[in-house]
Amino acid sequence: MALKVVIIGAVAAGPKAGSRLKRLDPSAEVVMVDRDEIFAYGGCGIPYYVSGDVAELNGLRTTSFHMVRDRDFFRGAKGLDVLAPWEALSLDRKRKEVLIRQVQTGQERRLGYDKLVLATGSEPVRPPLEGLDLPGVWPVTNLHQARAVKTAVSRGRVERAAVIGAGPTGLEMAEALGDLWGLEVHVFEQTDQVLPGLLDQDLAHCVAHHLEEQGLHLHLGQPLTRISGSPEKGVRSVAWDGGEVEVDLVILAAGVRPNNTLAREAGLEIAACGGLRVNRHLQTSDPDIFAGGDCVANRCLITGREICLASGSLANRQGRVIGTNLAGGLASFEGVVGSWIMKLFDTAVAKVGLSQARAIEAGFDPVSALVVASDRAHFYPSQDLMYLKLVVDRPTRRVLGLQGLAGAGDALAARINALAALLPHQPTVDELSNLEIAYAPPFAQAMDILNAAANTLDNLLAGRLRTISPQEFTRLLHDPGADVVFLDVRGLQNAKPYLEALGQRGWRHLPQESLAERLDEIPRDKTLITMCNAGSRSYEAQVTLRAAGIETLNLDGGLAAVKKWGEPIIPPEPD
Amino acid sequence: MALKVVIIGAVAAGPKAGSRLKRLDPSAEVVMVDRDEIFAYGGCGIPYYVSGDVAELNGLRTTSFHMVRDRDFFRGAKGLDVLAPWEALSLDRKRKEVLIRQVQTGQERRLGYDKLVLATGSEPVRPPLEGLDLPGVWPVTNLHQARAVKTAVSRGRVERAAVIGAGPTGLEMAEALGDLWGLEVHVFEQTDQVLPGLLDQDLAHCVAHHLEEQGLHLHLGQPLTRISGSPEKGVRSVAWDGGEVEVDLVILAAGVRPNNTLAREAGLEIAACGGLRVNRHLQTSDPDIFAGGDCVANRCLITGREICLASGSLANRQGRVIGTNLAGGLASFEGVVGSWIMKLFDTAVAKVGLSQARAIEAGFDPVSALVVASDRAHFYPSQDLMYLKLVVDRPTRRVLGLQGLAGAGDALAARINALAALLPHQPTVDELSNLEIAYAPPFAQAMDILNAAANTLDNLLAGRLRTISPQEFTRLLHDPGADVVFLDVRGLQNAKPYLEALGQRGWRHLPQESLAERLDEIPRDKTLITMCNAGSRSYEAQVTLRAAGIETLNLDGGLAAVKKWGEPIIPPEPD
Repeated sequence: MALKVVIIGAVAAGPKAGSRLKRLDPSAEVVMVDRDEIFAYGGCGIPYYVSGDVAELNGLRTTSFHMVRDRDFFRGAKGLDVLAPWEALSLDRKRKEVLIRQVQTGQERRLGYDKLVLATGSEPVRPPLEGLDLPGVWPVTNLHQARAVKTAVSRGRVERAAVIGAGPTGLEMAEALGDLWGLEVHVFEQTDQVLPGLLDQDLAHCVAHHLEEQGLHLHLGQPLTRISGSPEKGVRSVAWDGGEVEVDLVILAAGVRPNNTLAREAGLEIAACGGLRVNRHLQTSDPDIFAGGDCVANRCLITGREICLASGSLANRQGRVIGTNLAGGLASFEGVVGSWIMKLFDTAVAKVGLSQARAIEAGFDPVSALVVASDRAHFYPSQDLMYLKLVVDRPTRRVLGLQGLAGAGDALAARINALAALLPHQPTVDELSNLEIAYAPPFAQAMDILNAAANTLDNLLAGRLRTISPQEFTRLLHDPGADVVFLDVRGLQNAKPYLEALGQRGWRHLPQESLAERLDEIPRDKTLITMCNAGSRSYEAQVTLRAAGIETLNLDGGLAAVKKWGEPIIPPEPD
Repeated sequence: MALKVVIIGAVAAGPKAGSRLKRLDPSAEVVMVDRDEIFAYGGCGIPYYVSGDVAELNGLRTTSFHMVRDRDFFRGAKGLDVLAPWEALSLDRKRKEVLIRQVQTGQERRLGYDKLVLATGSEPVRPPLEGLDLPGVWPVTNLHQARAVKTAVSRGRVERAAVIGAGPTGLEMAEALGDLWGLEVHVFEQTDQVLPGLLDQDLAHCVAHHLEEQGLHLHLGQPLTRISGSPEKGVRSVAWDGGEVEVDLVILAAGVRPNNTLAREAGLEIAACGGLRVNRHLQTSDPDIFAGGDCVANRCLITGREICLASGSLANRQGRVIGTNLAGGLASFEGVVGSWIMKLFDTAVAKVGLSQARAIEAGFDPVSALVVASDRAHFYPSQDLMYLKLVVDRPTRRVLGLQGLAGAGDALAARINALAALLPHQPTVDELSNLEIAYAPPFAQAMDILNAAANTLDNLLAGRLRTISPQEFTRLLHDPGADVVFLDVRGLQNAKPYLEALGQRGWRHLPQESLAERLDEIPRDKTLITMCNAGSRSYEAQVTLRAAGIETLNLDGGLAAVKKWGEPIIPPEPD
């Protein structure tokens, strides 16, 4: 008897599971059910379609060899039947049946199964906000919405847009609308930072600075209170506590949550994060029902907790595991470390593992450092600074996570991916210190920034390095009452403009290489902050001064980090 | 009593060890000895200096903040004394003394030590070849030689150059001379491939094709037999078995070997590869003597064997471990996986772990696949193909190594570094299949090429995928006696020019998605080869045909791999 499999959801995990199963067991009878007549698309490409980088909507539905992944494709190329637009209404786990309904005609059918796959994805979070249903308010989680948004902006009827949510999708959409279409874009975020939950506040601040430089209007800690307009003319304005702006378009990107209705109503176990609980073989609490993609809870390999992640990549990898297991195999999916990257204008932002804030929530005692270094050999003609923040657990020396910004996104991925591979093995700082990053002058420094970050944490944990954050540094610099000496240990050429501008504020210059000879010039009755461009020369200065009995604080990430922070401390430097 | 440390060699590992020690123990008395008055330079930057990418020779001697790392720098900034040019003549391990001699004056001194560091680096291999000492024959392992070569070419007196050795340095120098200076460059390699020991022959062939397209003249399997010229006028020509060419310059880049003379004469243990034997704390067989960098034998974390690697990056990481241990710490260096990358014209080439050939030598039973895929989402506007060859041990499913080519070098590093991080943990194909590569359309496909490579190997190991190499494919295609049907399962547009050119040679077209319906058109009495652009659609075809009782061979890496191989099978395609 042929194995009968029903798959609910045909975007990423579903098609992958079905296709894999059919390759392993060509006799299996597989039906995919999707409530949308457009399925099997790359939703993560929507911002690129809206921006115009992807010209045709079908570009997001094609294979790499340009075939549209429609019903005929799945029938012919994969041997899968697709019922769409059909909606799954309920599961009868005893009878092993799914009740489905044709969305347009209302016709109902029961599909029997031996094994069922739930790949129901996620759905946009809808904040409790008046006016969300007005015409012109769009989530962008499917291709119909994407087309509607692009049609609206390409007709030139949109001058101003609001984006609800400063998560990845919100920011990608803001860039698409602001950069190519030249709209005035306002981004509203209820937390006080961009990319909440992904980046710590310090790096998020640097990202926000970059976005504002590119012309986006960020309203952080300013959730919308009202969307105004009329059903006839659509959205007209959005308001927040203390302000209002006229807009022609609102993008709803306040996050997504697992679409778990069907599973919940069928009595399957649901994790606290809202995702379906699955074991390492991606079976739900009913062993004949598998689940994968945005709708499941994943085990975090760092904390052991259940977390929900919406990712087309994760969905594909889980789909393959499900396909193998449907065919009688025993493939496993052990969990996730939460690897993430995005492009924002000309900067890439990425993270893997835990931010410092998340590490605290998870009960760790995290310590972190910001490391700024060139992404290639310093003598190589083209190069750019990379900014990495490494988070480590103090008592165990375990590496918990890494966040970063860089101009060269692939180069940033080259560090993030390396740590992602290592994190499931619970590396210590020491392992990361010796990690073998492929080296040649066009691709890395001889001491790669990732090794340097581990070394910095090693020094921090040993108490040899004592740091002050760029924020605290800037605060002290602007506080006339602060009794602080800012010890600039760079060369005179670098230090000169700072000395001139800030000599009155306690800025002093003593180059690191002459420090040991000039110890008597160091004031011993004030808080001393050592600094250089990136933090390593000033660390040497800190060590030298400590040997002379003088304790200092070293500016974390150096003046490069302060610049990235976006608050100019002197007029633009010549360098 | 202050700790007295002598460091022999002041290029990379030495300065790092000394600097780290001084930060941990500022009271230590450290003397570095180098036989060259120019030390602490980035030798790996020499080709970039010769090419002109690095304008000033001192660029290779400076810190990232543009200070030249000379004696004064080390004294002031690091607290280290440097004796240079002083040569270490011998060690007296009983008395704990090094005998050194001033290179210019011949003056001799004895330096006592509590701890000694040998960072003596490597020296160029000199093939047994007449004429190696003629003027105009240069190794490029130090900055004097680099300056001499650049002076010669920049004066316009060089029209033609020979490079001995097609390893990384030889090829980088060939590019530098050929690309910027427009010289006619001949590269002579005694083995029959470029990058021997690093890449397997198949990928090496693709690299060689690229180099020839860029105008280099490769003489593979053609070692030089003679360098002719006169002591007065310098080199005039080079000859090999069957040919001779006039040249004005010869670069000696036939590899390097550990400089172990001092250690060997002092009775320290030397490994079979020529490197000093060290334990995981980088102590030699004399616990008061540490060693690191090019001169040591490293434990290969895949085979457990001792191997020598010359790498500025490795030297720096080992230097830090030594510095920690000199100061009484207990840092470890567990071994290496042999991560390597280089840029060649507009292609990057990289590898980590074992090639298939090396895996066989090491006693594994390796199996491999060539995977070709886009380095970003296929709908993303800018993208390029990446070529990865993954090598796996058949009985254990252990991943042994990865080699690759790509236009976007950082993107290639993003995969190589990830596997480098994983290899010490002896991953299986299954772990790699689920590896979490950071995903967004500008940086990866939803199913990343590295995951796809693991999946391909999984299918190969299970016997579901049966492949034929691009070489064997091409051979069969050109063999009129071969009784083969080439089954092109792509769309008609792709297949048409091949059908027209090769229909007589057995080329047939049956698109994959209609295969199941047209099984009766498949000839069952011939060897059948399925193929598409990259190998995945044709794998689906293979599965479909197997279900119908028809076995086939699938073209590994698809027609993309054949094109990269460089042998055109039809006139240029429209696509």
